[in-house]
Amino acid sequence: MGLIVQKFGGTSVGNSERILNVAERVIEEKNRGNDVVVVVSAMGKTTDQLVSLAGEVTSSPSKREMDMLLTTGEQITISLLAMALQHKGYDAISFTGWQAGIETEPVFGNARVLNIERTRLQAELAKGKVVIVAGFQGATADGEIATLGRGGSDTTAVALAAALKADKCDIYTDVTGVFTTDPRYVKGARKLLSISYDEMLELANLGAGVLHPRAVEFAKNYHVPLEVRSSMERESGTIIEEEGKMEQNLVVRGIAFEDKITKVTVLGLSNTLSSLSTIFTTLANNHLNVDIIIQSTTNKNTTDLSFSIHSEDLKDTLQVLADNKESLKYENVQFESDLAKVSIVGSGMVSNPGVAAKMFEVLANESIEVKMVSTSEIKVSTVVEEGNMIRAVDSLHQAFELAGTTVKS
Amino acid sequence: MGLIVQKFGGTSVGNSERILNVAERVIEEKNRGNDVVVVVSAMGKTTDQLVSLAGEVTSSPSKREMDMLLTTGEQITISLLAMALQHKGYDAISFTGWQAGIETEPVFGNARVLNIERTRLQAELAKGKVVIVAGFQGATADGEIATLGRGGSDTTAVALAAALKADKCDIYTDVTGVFTTDPRYVKGARKLLSISYDEMLELANLGAGVLHPRAVEFAKNYHVPLEVRSSMERESGTIIEEEGKMEQNLVVRGIAFEDKITKVTVLGLSNTLSSLSTIFTTLANNHLNVDIIIQSTTNKNTTDLSFSIHSEDLKDTLQVLADNKESLKYENVQFESDLAKVSIVGSGMVSNPGVAAKMFEVLANESIEVKMVSTSEIKVSTVVEEGNMIRAVDSLHQAFELAGTTVKS
Repeated sequence: MGLIVQKFGGTSVGNSERILNVAERVIEEKNRGNDVVVVVSAMGKTTDQLVSLAGEVTSSPSKREMDMLLTTGEQITISLLAMALQHKGYDAISFTGWQAGIETEPVFGNARVLNIERTRLQAELAKGKVVIVAGFQGATADGEIATLGRGGSDTTAVALAAALKADKCDIYTDVTGVFTTDPRYVKGARKLLSISYDEMLELANLGAGVLHPRAVEFAKNYHVPLEVRSSMERESGTIIEEEGKMEQNLVVRGIAFEDKITKVTVLGLSNTLSSLSTIFTTLANNHLNVDIIIQSTTNKNTTDLSFSIHSEDLKDTLQVLADNKESLKYENVQFESDLAKVSIVGSGMVSNPGVAAKMFEVLANESIEVKMVSTSEIKVSTVVEEGNMIRAVDSLHQAFELAGTTVKS
Repeated sequence: MGLIVQKFGGTSVGNSERILNVAERVIEEKNRGNDVVVVVSAMGKTTDQLVSLAGEVTSSPSKREMDMLLTTGEQITISLLAMALQHKGYDAISFTGWQAGIETEPVFGNARVLNIERTRLQAELAKGKVVIVAGFQGATADGEIATLGRGGSDTTAVALAAALKADKCDIYTDVTGVFTTDPRYVKGARKLLSISYDEMLELANLGAGVLHPRAVEFAKNYHVPLEVRSSMERESGTIIEEEGKMEQNLVVRGIAFEDKITKVTVLGLSNTLSSLSTIFTTLANNHLNVDIIIQSTTNKNTTDLSFSIHSEDLKDTLQVLADNKESLKYENVQFESDLAKVSIVGSGMVSNPGVAAKMFEVLANESIEVKMVSTSEIKVSTVVEEGNMIRAVDSLHQAFELAGTTVKS
């Protein structure tokens, strides 16, 4: 007897047949004697369809109204899943984000969860009901509907698991677990039995795509055990927990990659103690995410600063920089698009010097130019041209001996 | 300078192009110097599509989850209309039913509006914004999403007009006004310049389809002037107000008709003082609407009771009667489906004896059997076979001299 939070993504609830399949997975868990909270995303292409509908009306929709529009997607799924469970003879009740007590900060399009008021969900669980919650959404203290941004349904699931002190949070998806790299692009990519929060966090942050980084962070902070597993197959997935079992004591655990990266360079930035703080505070206040940052001082008075962003944020980033040119005190802005980020991740790296050197050597042998570099204790990231991305991943996957047979259990 | 509530139905917001057209109609009103509150329905066939999606999952969806599902339809429209207005340079903000402070009774599928908390809407109007509200929906005091039933968006519009003390409530639809009868079926049907609340109420109740009866009742009770008009044409529509202007002093003002009627007969009902009250209280408690009621006493101890319902409520009605057979004390239940109701309406009727007689004569001449009759001071309703409906309307429209040229203004 415990409490399990299950999360099913858009593909898993893509049509009514799949929703009935999800109901079966919920019932299996319920029949094991567990209380179940289910978090679902919008059905398949619903979000894309809504975005395109907005595009027919305006080229620059306000974020508030986009959130109003997009949150209908998950609301459709929760009601259909509740109906499916009721149809199969199980008591179920659906809740939108605001009904589930998910309070977010007052930001549209990319809000953080501030608090979860558990009373209503706990009351329904106590009645033996399966509780279904719309992912990706919440409401501000003022009663405004806000979304949690990309991958927000993962965050909803983990946040609910933390708030309700769930025993486990299962992330059901269209892959069978976390792989050494994306098996759609690299032959021999291998499923990991387990991985640590920190490694997963680097992989998630680096665009592995299986799990949203904010969700992993939440899970790490609140010690929520996660399992990434398939909504179609019955095999076990990948457990994400405090210390990943060192199955093969690999120095590099996985390789992540992400395209649509743009490098922005601010030239002739006034070289004062506060200039870096000012520029990134300004961007953060406009909810623009900056990833890799490189500074190279050219002379005493000014400095050149480069940073990477998602290409979709380029327009807003340039606008914010232009709007604040006077206060930021710089000469010029340049940018380079069509870039990609390739990263190696592994907690064994910290005790193995020369891992970064080996990475650069592999890329150099492939004649791949490295445009930016960033390192942490457990990862090395490089920015390369988009066209070189898959070749870089492939050669690194071989060089670090990650290939192998998929672990079945 | 005043406050106008505009309501646009599903056809008027059927696609993005029409939503942009609706934005123009809103802007015209705003540019006249008025504050504007806009109530919209779900886009075109959205509600039907959602109902069919539910049908793929279960044959008997719970009403709570249907409300959860269907309310997404209006939420999509409000966000798109807000985007359209913002695109055209007008400040606008959209609200779901619960955000707009529309509190309903705790009933799903057919809830009544209990109260409207105006603060939030008034604050946005004071900022000069166009306020857009999702029709058809509200929330209970417990935060459950509930719909107002068929034609509920009209009710939302009139309830908001009453709560905000609007100067006028314009119901934009796909017809140019209220007609003597449905022009799609009867040639020579004529648009009325004005009509009284009571006449409109009878016409709305009788299935004229232009306006929801609950909305007319609300308008009458709170003295909200209504105008039914076209969302595509610029011509004036039909004003609904305290005393309709007696343009031609017609005895009969209009003819309403409605198909999908079922006559239910309860045989051998125990003839006590409370038996009628018990049976209809039981049906009402199950939110089943009964229309015409006929009682004929056959002997001292028992009575036969007939009433008409919407055919879609037949299954539930038979279930409720069966479930309560013991307490209701009757012998048997019969029913006859595929019936229709045809009614003549006009406030002149009260001072003109013989109107009902003329109606029966017209129907008899057409060899149309009258299955049930019900009268009020301003209407006579008959139930006939569905196949005779249009012929009955046609012959009555001619006999009461309703045909004429459409009034343009």
